Amino acid sequence: MNDVSRRSFITQTATLAAAAPLLASGVSDAAANSPKKKLGFALCGLGSLSTHQIAPALQKTKNCRLAGIITGTPSKADAWSAQYNIPKKNIYNYDTMDKLANNPDIDVVYVVTPNSLHAQHTIAAAKAGKHVFCEKPMEISPERCEQMIAACKQANRMLGVAYRCQFEPNHLECVRLARSKEFGDLRIIQAGFGFAIGDPAQWRLHKALSGGGALMDVGIYCLQTTRMLTGEEPVSVFAAEAKTDAQKFAEVDETITWQAKFPSGVISNCTTTFRVNGLQGFRAFADKGWFGLDPAYFYNGIHGARSDGKEISIPQEDQFAAEMDDFAQCILEKRQSKVSGEEGLRDIRILTAIYESVRTGKEVKLG
Amino acid sequence: MNDVSRRSFITQTATLAAAAPLLASGVSDAAANSPKKKLGFALCGLGSLSTHQIAPALQKTKNCRLAGIITGTPSKADAWSAQYNIPKKNIYNYDTMDKLANNPDIDVVYVVTPNSLHAQHTIAAAKAGKHVFCEKPMEISPERCEQMIAACKQANRMLGVAYRCQFEPNHLECVRLARSKEFGDLRIIQAGFGFAIGDPAQWRLHKALSGGGALMDVGIYCLQTTRMLTGEEPVSVFAAEAKTDAQKFAEVDETITWQAKFPSGVISNCTTTFRVNGLQGFRAFADKGWFGLDPAYFYNGIHGARSDGKEISIPQEDQFAAEMDDFAQCILEKRQSKVSGEEGLRDIRILTAIYESVRTGKEVKLG
Repeated sequence: MNDVSRRSFITQTATLAAAAPLLASGVSDAAANSPKKKLGFALCGLGSLSTHQIAPALQKTKNCRLAGIITGTPSKADAWSAQYNIPKKNIYNYDTMDKLANNPDIDVVYVVTPNSLHAQHTIAAAKAGKHVFCEKPMEISPERCEQMIAACKQANRMLGVAYRCQFEPNHLECVRLARSKEFGDLRIIQAGFGFAIGDPAQWRLHKALSGGGALMDVGIYCLQTTRMLTGEEPVSVFAAEAKTDAQKFAEVDETITWQAKFPSGVISNCTTTFRVNGLQGFRAFADKGWFGLDPAYFYNGIHGARSDGKEISIPQEDQFAAEMDDFAQCILEKRQSKVSGEEGLRDIRILTAIYESVRTGKEVKLG
Repeated sequence: MNDVSRRSFITQTATLAAAAPLLASGVSDAAANSPKKKLGFALCGLGSLSTHQIAPALQKTKNCRLAGIITGTPSKADAWSAQYNIPKKNIYNYDTMDKLANNPDIDVVYVVTPNSLHAQHTIAAAKAGKHVFCEKPMEISPERCEQMIAACKQANRMLGVAYRCQFEPNHLECVRLARSKEFGDLRIIQAGFGFAIGDPAQWRLHKALSGGGALMDVGIYCLQTTRMLTGEEPVSVFAAEAKTDAQKFAEVDETITWQAKFPSGVISNCTTTFRVNGLQGFRAFADKGWFGLDPAYFYNGIHGARSDGKEISIPQEDQFAAEMDDFAQCILEKRQSKVSGEEGLRDIRILTAIYESVRTGKEVKLG
């Protein structure tokens, strides 16, 4: 689709959406009734993830379209507007989000700002009557997650957290192997995700913006894996931190290892780091064999192995497109997303407990 | 070499050794002066490991020969005597070990009895003037290890612990990679070793004999890996246990995960189990890449990978033959073995701290 025809298409669907008033049910009549309706997404925060992953992924979705942007950087607004044919009226900054209420082009605000701004931007979007899809980690404290959930509930809007692996078919195959007990009861899960972080000036290294380091940013993937495979919530966590670059990681964790016990007796052993590359995958050990993915958490190329010699290698679509299409579908069908705000909150409670264990040197009970 | 010529050879070297009085230096003149001297090993405890690994390995050694046996089972004595041409005079039971003092055929007693008998048998052998090679774990408490070290020191005999991986060339290549910093400074080590244990009646599941379960039996390999790669002693450990079969593992640990911090900032994350198969290997992550072995701890087929795509695949001789030959060489050259009693004691101190962490739910500092 060339620029002109794409612009025509966007204009056409925008007009359609403009005709439909927002309903208390949380979805417009037009959205609910028209199978061809693509929900309009506004990206809130135009950093690297929005630029290199989410905006390109939106072009691949079935149910979504990039309808607007919310940014604090005027030069980015101009560039995005030109690249994606976003009309000026669909461009906002963080102080004008209340005006979203008057814009029927926008159905969903996808919050991609630094972690500690998620609550502020989610609540602003919900108050403006928009559904919210929010990057993980959901926020930097359970209290803020609860505020986000309450705001969306009050506005009768849906809240989803961007756990892309929950829509990745190789991850889902591992969940199937675990839950079906094809290899018997699960006993041990090993998982690790990390990378050598670059630019020391980035927000991920500043606690006020990130809430934490490697654990918040990539350790959460390992935690998700353990919860997805077991289908359980951990009853306790045990964690330790290593810091070798006290300057770069003055505010946040560099490397954290943690163990979690689950009600069925499964124990997980996870490692996350901002220090080194190569830590990337998980393996689950059950009574009659093992299975796992390596790499597990990249944007593509997910691949796995099983103890019986078979490969786990299911063709993948764009993970960001998949999660956005699912969220849009949930909105259209008026059903709760599996990556709800409550799901995001559970992780933040556990991450908070892991930090408490690091701080106290003690096992921390949960629930 | 056929049976007759092997017997002739053994008789010849036995006669040679018989002519040499034991010296306070801990090695006979004949042993020290004759490059052809093979040290006589007596295996103490004729269980599966002695039967299937150590006795066959002794046939492959350069510096050792199977000269005697110590067993509490007369039927085993007969079978071994016939199979390995062991003269009746070189067969002992646990109550007659003091008589080893009068037998110049025996230079070394290799203690392969259950863990909690290692001190008793080591001390008996030392008192009889024999060098002692002892299976790992060295014993079930630091105090008993110290008694073993003291007894061997008092008898002026050498004490070695059977850490076969310290002589395995692929492990040594990983140590070289770590210490030479070929991939930069080491940061994280992940290691796991476990298997689904069979016969519920075996001594490994009885605490009085084993001192502990998976951690004592196979977790110790992971601990060794972390200490070998770093060349450091951990400053603290943090551990958790999972038990899913409370009957089978009523006395000992089924699965333990632990984290250890090292002075240079390296953190290790290890898992050991008697519950499932497949947990077998380690990976070390450094600033510029990673390397590791998988499988790492089997008797053969050790194989590894590096982040630059190169394989680690060095031809291996029998690991048991290698460790016994080295111990014999140390005796012949009157130098301390790298797998000394002190090395064994270090591990037992750390394993004891790991159990304390499991019990208390707290990080345990190490001196």
